[in-house]
Amino acid sequence: MEINPKTNERIANYKLLIGGVLPRPIAFITSIGEQGVLNAAPYSFFNVVSTDPPMIAVAVMRKPGGVHKDTARNILESKEFVINVVDEQNVDKVNVTSCDYPSEISEVEQAGLTTSPSQVVHVPRIQQAKVHFECRLHQHLELGNGPNSDLIIGEVVHIHVDDTLYDGGRIDTKKLAPIGRLAGTDYVTLGNIMSMPRPTYKKE
Amino acid sequence: MEINPKTNERIANYKLLIGGVLPRPIAFITSIGEQGVLNAAPYSFFNVVSTDPPMIAVAVMRKPGGVHKDTARNILESKEFVINVVDEQNVDKVNVTSCDYPSEISEVEQAGLTTSPSQVVHVPRIQQAKVHFECRLHQHLELGNGPNSDLIIGEVVHIHVDDTLYDGGRIDTKKLAPIGRLAGTDYVTLGNIMSMPRPTYKKE
Repeated sequence: MEINPKTNERIANYKLLIGGVLPRPIAFITSIGEQGVLNAAPYSFFNVVSTDPPMIAVAVMRKPGGVHKDTARNILESKEFVINVVDEQNVDKVNVTSCDYPSEISEVEQAGLTTSPSQVVHVPRIQQAKVHFECRLHQHLELGNGPNSDLIIGEVVHIHVDDTLYDGGRIDTKKLAPIGRLAGTDYVTLGNIMSMPRPTYKKE
Repeated sequence: MEINPKTNERIANYKLLIGGVLPRPIAFITSIGEQGVLNAAPYSFFNVVSTDPPMIAVAVMRKPGGVHKDTARNILESKEFVINVVDEQNVDKVNVTSCDYPSEISEVEQAGLTTSPSQVVHVPRIQQAKVHFECRLHQHLELGNGPNSDLIIGEVVHIHVDDTLYDGGRIDTKKLAPIGRLAGTDYVTLGNIMSMPRPTYKKE
């Protein structure tokens, strides 16, 4: 099948992107709105973008009419957010927060989640997550027609790792049991883990 | 465990990033160097960043001394690349290409992979991949100290989907059997897929 994105509907392109770029890690983002309401929502257009200093990026698609999602607007205003890592134990509650509640309703309460204070930023973190990356806004790019996307690049200013997962500087993947995002409404657990060392080049 | 990235070694921060942001999708990127050598290498700091037009971003970490990796240099020079999707059938060969070969050696040949011509860009695609995103460079950001990272934002100008996976505008996830990247040298298959529809808000 040969597809020219230029002659394809936006929703059709979207389906091919989320079906071809996967499994995606999930950033469950907490942020604070102007009225002090704590917002939380999951985003899977998310990854690491720098290691020194550590930085992550999240692309938040706009709502119809180019309107910012609460998460993007909050981060652009307050310059702070927390990424809470999604795992097998909290994913059901995280999915509840993906509901499009009005700005004045806190998804955190709706989902039965609770919070702990953060160390460096003012935005609290989700108690039910085992790893948290506290972030400060580093750079913001508007992308696409409209624009249709806010690419939020954040510097990680503090990291919390639950003691039960912390293993001499590493995070125990199996104990974390992270959840990935697929196409449609699908989430996925980890399957078979294969260790494949990087080959080394030897000049003949 | 509380970690301040500012007082942590770069490699220690790196380990926490790759252990906390996962599972990551893999972009197996083909690009062409100045001498015409076809380069191929896998990158997992990769995701979707816009849907209209479709755009993806890949963060390519620099080598010690701030030196561009072949992939980043090729894309900055030629403005073109292809993202080949990694699956259970091609992952062994893809991992061979992660070896740091000199620029004049083609990883594609070393790994026993073969190519097909692309539709829009000059860079060929990998025959052993079932989904390909042909991309043109849209924007390039240098990030971090050094800088240590090249964030490559590409517009998807053509998409190929193997007919056996194409299902009325969607890509069949199970037939694709994509591979994700974890920490260390670990790759992962999909585990249990859970369909979790997004709840809808009803005003009371």
